Amino acid sequence: MIKINENFLKLQAGYLFPEIGRRKHAFQKANPDAKIISMGIGDVTQPLAPAVVEAMKKAADEMGRAETFHGYDDGGIGYEFLREAIRKNDFASRPVRNSLVGGGGPGGGGISNGARGVEVELDEIFISDGAKCDTGNIQEIFGLDNVVAVTDPVYPVYVDTNVMAGRTGGAAGQGRYDGIVYMPCTEANGFVAEPPKQKVDIIYLCFPNNPTGAVATKEQLAEWVAYARENKAIILFDAAYEAYISDPKIPHSIYEIEGAKEVAIEFRSFSKTAGFTGVRCAFTVIPKQLRAYTKAGKAVDVNPIWGRRHCTKFNGVSYITQAGAAAVYSPQGKKQVRRIIEIYMANARLIRETLARLGYTIYGGVNAPYLWLKTPNGTGSWEFFDLLLNKAHVVCTPGAGFGAAGEGFVRLTAFGRPDSVKDALERFATI
Amino acid sequence: MIKINENFLKLQAGYLFPEIGRRKHAFQKANPDAKIISMGIGDVTQPLAPAVVEAMKKAADEMGRAETFHGYDDGGIGYEFLREAIRKNDFASRPVRNSLVGGGGPGGGGISNGARGVEVELDEIFISDGAKCDTGNIQEIFGLDNVVAVTDPVYPVYVDTNVMAGRTGGAAGQGRYDGIVYMPCTEANGFVAEPPKQKVDIIYLCFPNNPTGAVATKEQLAEWVAYARENKAIILFDAAYEAYISDPKIPHSIYEIEGAKEVAIEFRSFSKTAGFTGVRCAFTVIPKQLRAYTKAGKAVDVNPIWGRRHCTKFNGVSYITQAGAAAVYSPQGKKQVRRIIEIYMANARLIRETLARLGYTIYGGVNAPYLWLKTPNGTGSWEFFDLLLNKAHVVCTPGAGFGAAGEGFVRLTAFGRPDSVKDALERFATI
Repeated sequence: MIKINENFLKLQAGYLFPEIGRRKHAFQKANPDAKIISMGIGDVTQPLAPAVVEAMKKAADEMGRAETFHGYDDGGIGYEFLREAIRKNDFASRPVRNSLVGGGGPGGGGISNGARGVEVELDEIFISDGAKCDTGNIQEIFGLDNVVAVTDPVYPVYVDTNVMAGRTGGAAGQGRYDGIVYMPCTEANGFVAEPPKQKVDIIYLCFPNNPTGAVATKEQLAEWVAYARENKAIILFDAAYEAYISDPKIPHSIYEIEGAKEVAIEFRSFSKTAGFTGVRCAFTVIPKQLRAYTKAGKAVDVNPIWGRRHCTKFNGVSYITQAGAAAVYSPQGKKQVRRIIEIYMANARLIRETLARLGYTIYGGVNAPYLWLKTPNGTGSWEFFDLLLNKAHVVCTPGAGFGAAGEGFVRLTAFGRPDSVKDALERFATI
Repeated sequence: MIKINENFLKLQAGYLFPEIGRRKHAFQKANPDAKIISMGIGDVTQPLAPAVVEAMKKAADEMGRAETFHGYDDGGIGYEFLREAIRKNDFASRPVRNSLVGGGGPGGGGISNGARGVEVELDEIFISDGAKCDTGNIQEIFGLDNVVAVTDPVYPVYVDTNVMAGRTGGAAGQGRYDGIVYMPCTEANGFVAEPPKQKVDIIYLCFPNNPTGAVATKEQLAEWVAYARENKAIILFDAAYEAYISDPKIPHSIYEIEGAKEVAIEFRSFSKTAGFTGVRCAFTVIPKQLRAYTKAGKAVDVNPIWGRRHCTKFNGVSYITQAGAAAVYSPQGKKQVRRIIEIYMANARLIRETLARLGYTIYGGVNAPYLWLKTPNGTGSWEFFDLLLNKAHVVCTPGAGFGAAGEGFVRLTAFGRPDSVKDALERFATI
């Protein structure tokens, strides 16, 4: 008799975004004339950079000719042309200018000024079709008896994939699961958790943070790296939003912290950096220094284990997509992509300033495309979601959907079209 | 302390294709002037159909304009335009002509004459980035205590992903793992295994078969469906090569068998059908009638469980890729793709006829792009691999890499360029 994986039955109702979609569609159905503006789901709205479009069209043409056709990306870890561009631009180079408007000049580091003099080898970089996939799949290569720590609020994928794998008990109320260590991120700690007092094995960190928009300083990350080294823990560092960092003192990569390569895996994505949400390209860095252990205490290299997983369960990213991603690092591509990020960050600034003027308490949006809005007068976050939808026809993301400590907040994103953002903010004034 | 998933340490050295790559590269390094021809790895060589290239370029342009930009594919299960094209062309329509050269006319069924009057609903179709990924990931939603049955020889992904998950014991020699039920496919049974006498829970079947090129008749599949229904087992049916079926009596979909929807998941791919190995698009059908069970015996719907897995760990396929895949079903696309399949099948015919004339015993290649060559005089399959590489500079795939019962065979594929295939066959005559 075929047995289901009963861990899936522990999952609580609907993944957050489908639930938002359901409420939005129900409202739209009941109010067909309402013009809903989404400030909720973190999808981008600006079109792809022209350099990316041209590179993909050229690649499509190459795929149509026998002499330039590309089949399987051998081994599935990504074309060297893309991994080399990443190595050089996102890690090895040093930023020449540090302002938000900077970057992109010849020899001028990554798209985001994210390049930091970090040496990463080509076979430490694994190209994939999304940071969601990578952050979801990575737990597979670790034992089921590891203790997982997440921040609260948290990107639901980190938790749900561990529930599916059986690394947790059942739902324990407030969206929490038994067996997971939750580290509250609150106004009191500036939304950056400190390492826990207890021993944990797998730590998910995301900076710039989704959903709060908080960033970690070098000193804060160094504390985490020290904790991981001391406890032989591993840090899964989600840096999908690093391109939005404007403060030159904030690290873009966890590998800017000495010793981090021995304890950290880093996830990056083109989704928000270059508007690839509908194109699908990301990458994960697994340093060769990284070790995990057998129950008997024998050290095992993690890089080849992930390599084995990658080439067994994955078959590479479209050549056309990889060609598009590489174009992000061309001089034109850098400028164009930078310009798009500036549009979103202008949105973020406007949201911050307008809502502050309206009397709201709001966080994030300076080094991140996310803003964390405190609901007024202790309104529940789903209650505020419904209020905003019904009264202003604006969709936000309820903070409670990201964890118990998100209650009393909603997430807004800077990814809207500027005119829609302006409209949405005007409607905010009416509720 | 971070514990590795020790199941990964059970995996035997190198996944088959990387091992072939290593030997090939070592030979090339030692013999830089040798012009190696690959008849081994199942990668395609014909360029993409012009209709596909044009559709992808158009889609890339759409991505470059705000009003036609596509972000996340909502829910990640695929655009309706593609799922509808699949539903209609690959399943619902009935073939009008049944010869290899047929198909593709207006109202004329799928690319492959694969449409068979099978009703599949849109939300039973999940678009993905590869059948390798889907056949690798599907086991996740089932309990670890299910007994897995595979044919021998077998596509290594089915086995390795179950080893990684912990559904097996250690390696038990001859590439086998304790706890897996192996069903030998031999000359005696025409390379089609019968259902086992014992009870198993998860059955992987692949027809047309990789690596042997064998196909199952309707009667043979009906036996499997009857077995699965009787034992509440589930059949994971890999139909990635259905477009190569030329015999009109051979089923293209397992759903042509009555009752199969209650016990089978079907995997399809654009990789071999339309040369998408470097583009990445596939789909999986999970009928709503399909049930699995809790340990307590409660029936659970499988479709929403896979949906939950899909939207949590995956984020959809590139819009550009999906637009390209949909173009495969356009009248021009059907004709162009059919023409490519005919090129490969002409290769298959030539390989069969030439090697038979040279005195080899060879199977497959009639309803499948794979040929299963018996090594002469009981030569071991890796030994024959090395012989062929060293003497003829031709790469094949050792049958032993697919399982113990593959020993004494090598797999050849029809995916080469016609001129390379001719050259390779001439070299065969010299060894």
